[in-house]
Amino acid sequence: MRTLTVALGERSYPIHIGPGLLTHPDLVVSRLPQKRVAIVTNATVAPLYLDAFVNALARAGTAAVPIVIPDGEAHKDWRTLNTILDALLEHRFERRTAVVALGGGVVGDIAGFAAAIYQRGVPFVQIPTTLLAQVDSAVGGKTAINHALGKNMIGAFYQPRVVVADTDTLVTLPQRELGAGLAEVIKYGLIRDRIFFAWLEENIEHLVAKDANALTYAIEQSCRNKAEVVSEDEREGGVRALLNFGHTFGHAIEAGTGYGTWLHGEAVAAGMVLAARLSERMGLIHAADVSRVKEILVRAKLPVEAPDLGIERYLGLMGHDKKVEGGQLKFIVLDAIGSASVTEAPADAVADVLQRPVVHA
Amino acid sequence: MRTLTVALGERSYPIHIGPGLLTHPDLVVSRLPQKRVAIVTNATVAPLYLDAFVNALARAGTAAVPIVIPDGEAHKDWRTLNTILDALLEHRFERRTAVVALGGGVVGDIAGFAAAIYQRGVPFVQIPTTLLAQVDSAVGGKTAINHALGKNMIGAFYQPRVVVADTDTLVTLPQRELGAGLAEVIKYGLIRDRIFFAWLEENIEHLVAKDANALTYAIEQSCRNKAEVVSEDEREGGVRALLNFGHTFGHAIEAGTGYGTWLHGEAVAAGMVLAARLSERMGLIHAADVSRVKEILVRAKLPVEAPDLGIERYLGLMGHDKKVEGGQLKFIVLDAIGSASVTEAPADAVADVLQRPVVHA
Repeated sequence: MRTLTVALGERSYPIHIGPGLLTHPDLVVSRLPQKRVAIVTNATVAPLYLDAFVNALARAGTAAVPIVIPDGEAHKDWRTLNTILDALLEHRFERRTAVVALGGGVVGDIAGFAAAIYQRGVPFVQIPTTLLAQVDSAVGGKTAINHALGKNMIGAFYQPRVVVADTDTLVTLPQRELGAGLAEVIKYGLIRDRIFFAWLEENIEHLVAKDANALTYAIEQSCRNKAEVVSEDEREGGVRALLNFGHTFGHAIEAGTGYGTWLHGEAVAAGMVLAARLSERMGLIHAADVSRVKEILVRAKLPVEAPDLGIERYLGLMGHDKKVEGGQLKFIVLDAIGSASVTEAPADAVADVLQRPVVHA
Repeated sequence: MRTLTVALGERSYPIHIGPGLLTHPDLVVSRLPQKRVAIVTNATVAPLYLDAFVNALARAGTAAVPIVIPDGEAHKDWRTLNTILDALLEHRFERRTAVVALGGGVVGDIAGFAAAIYQRGVPFVQIPTTLLAQVDSAVGGKTAINHALGKNMIGAFYQPRVVVADTDTLVTLPQRELGAGLAEVIKYGLIRDRIFFAWLEENIEHLVAKDANALTYAIEQSCRNKAEVVSEDEREGGVRALLNFGHTFGHAIEAGTGYGTWLHGEAVAAGMVLAARLSERMGLIHAADVSRVKEILVRAKLPVEAPDLGIERYLGLMGHDKKVEGGQLKFIVLDAIGSASVTEAPADAVADVLQRPVVHA
C-alpha cells in the first residue's frame, strides 16, 4: 500500500493506494467519529463490491445503510441528489454520521455534494472504483451536480476524511472506462510533469492492458500531482485551474452531445487535442507537440476528434464555463509538454480550432 | 453608524448598523470583486426597497439583476432555490459576481445557500430588512433550505462579505414580525448576557414601540453577542449550539403546524418557555426564573404557550434535530438568567414538559 497526503492544515487527509484495500475497513473506520455510515453507490458497482465492503465494515463494528443510485452522468442531477438527502433524513442520519462514496466520479461528486450540504456538512469518505475517480475526481474536494445549462455548475468545495483507492477494483472496469481515466492521467503529464509524460509514452500499452504495477505507479503519480496542486490552491484561485486543461472544450462536448453520450474522460481527451491545437495556433507549442498529444491519446484508445457541434453552439456552451471572468472566457493552454498556463485567447484562434474540430494536424 | 466585526481570520467581515445605510452602496460595492450583482429579494420587500437600492448601486457604477422570490418560510425550499440558480445561470453569472440578499431571514438563508453552491461558491452580501435577520440570521454564515422532514436540514456554512443593517427598514416592518425578531434579541440576554437582559426588562416597551435609539442599541448588542460566539465556534462544534436555545422545541412547532403558520421567532419564544420549564424541571433554575422568561416574552407580544401537538409528534419532529448525537437528543438549558449549557435531559422531564405544553408556571 502507498499512502500520500493532501496537505490542508487541520483538514489534511490521506490517500491510500493498493490492492485489496476495500476489505481493510480500518483505513476508513479510524477516520470517522461514529460507527455508522451511509454508502452511496450505483446499480453497476453495488453487485460487484457492496457486500464485501459492508461485511468488512460490519466486522469492524460499523453499521452501513446502502443508498443505490442509477449509473451514469445523466443522473448527476437534482433528482438523484434529493434521493440521497431523503434517504439520509429517513434513516435519521446525524451530523457526525459519515457518507461514503463507493463508485466512480459521478457517485463521488454527488455523494460528496450531499455530504457537504446535509445538515450543513457531515463527514465524507471517498472509495473510488474507477481509474478516473482514483486519479482525479476522488481527490481534492470538488463536489457537484450538473445543470441543464452547464456541467458541475452547482456544488461545493468539500474535502473527504480519507481516500481509499483499491486497485483490484480496476479488474472489472470496462475498457472504455479505463481509457476515460487514462485521459486524466495523461493530463497530469501534459500540464506539469514531463518526466511522468515520458514514462507514459513508454508505458501506455501496459496501462491499457491493466498491468497492475503500471496502474499503481500511474495512480500514485497522478494523485501526487493532484495533491500538490490542491494543497497549494484548494479553492481554485490560481494554479488549480490548470487541472482543467481540455475541460472547457470537454464540458462543451459533454453538454452539447447530451451528458452520458461521451464519457467525461473521452470528452477531455478530444478537448485536450483542441486545447493543444489552440496552443499551437497561438504560437506557444509546435505542431510536433500536438502530434505527441494526439499520439498518446490514440494509443490509449481515446477519441482525438471532437464532434462538429458548430462554432456558435460551442461558444454558447463554453460561455457558461466557470472560468469566465468579466464575460471573457479563459483557456488553459500548453507552453510546452509538461507546462501549462491560463490565458485569454484571440477569438479568431478559438474560432479556427472550433470550426474544424475533426481536422488532423 | 455602528460597525462590528465578525472575526474569522481572512474571512472576517464587518456588520454596519444604522439609519439610511441602504442608499450608501459604497459599504457593499467596496467589498466586491465585480461591478455586477444579483439581488435576491421577495415580493413584499421589492416594492418597498428594491428600486432605491438598485438606483444607489447604479450611481456607484454597479449593475444589478433582481431575482424576486415569493414571501414566506413555506417557500424556503428546493423549488425556490432552483428558481434562483436558474436565474444566475441564465444571466451568465460568474464565479466573482456577487449575490446580495435583500430581505428577511428566509431571503438571507436561501440566497446565501444559492451563493454557497453556485459554481461552488460566489461572493455573498447580506442586507437584512427585518429585525430577526438584523439580529440573528444575517450574521454568522448559516444558510439553508427546509426539508419536509426538518427545518434547515439542507444547507452550508457560508459567510457573507459584509452585513448592512439599515434600521430605517424596520419602520415598515409589521408588528408581528418585529415581535418575532425580539424573541432572538431576548435569547441573547438569556443565554449569555444578564446585563443586556436587565436592560431589556427595562426597555422592552420602547422596542415594541420601535423607538429608533432603543432598536439600534438592541441590534448592536445582539450582533455583538452573536459575533463573539461565531468567531469562537464558526461551525458549531461547541458554544455556538447555545444560540439554538428554544430552537429544538421551536423547530418542532414550526414543522408540526406547517411552516409559515407560526413565525420562526414566535415558535422560538414558545420554545424558550418550554426549555426554561425543562431547566426548572431538571433543578437548574427556579420557578421565578421561568416567570421572568415568560413575562418579558408576553411584554414583547410573543406567544408563550406551545401548541399541543402531542408528545409523540413532538418527539418525532425533534428526532430529526441537527443536535441529535448517537440517537440521543441534546437540549440547551438555562443554568441561570444569562447562562446556558448543552445537555442530555431525562426522558421523563422532557415528557412532562411536552405533555402539558400550555400549562402556566
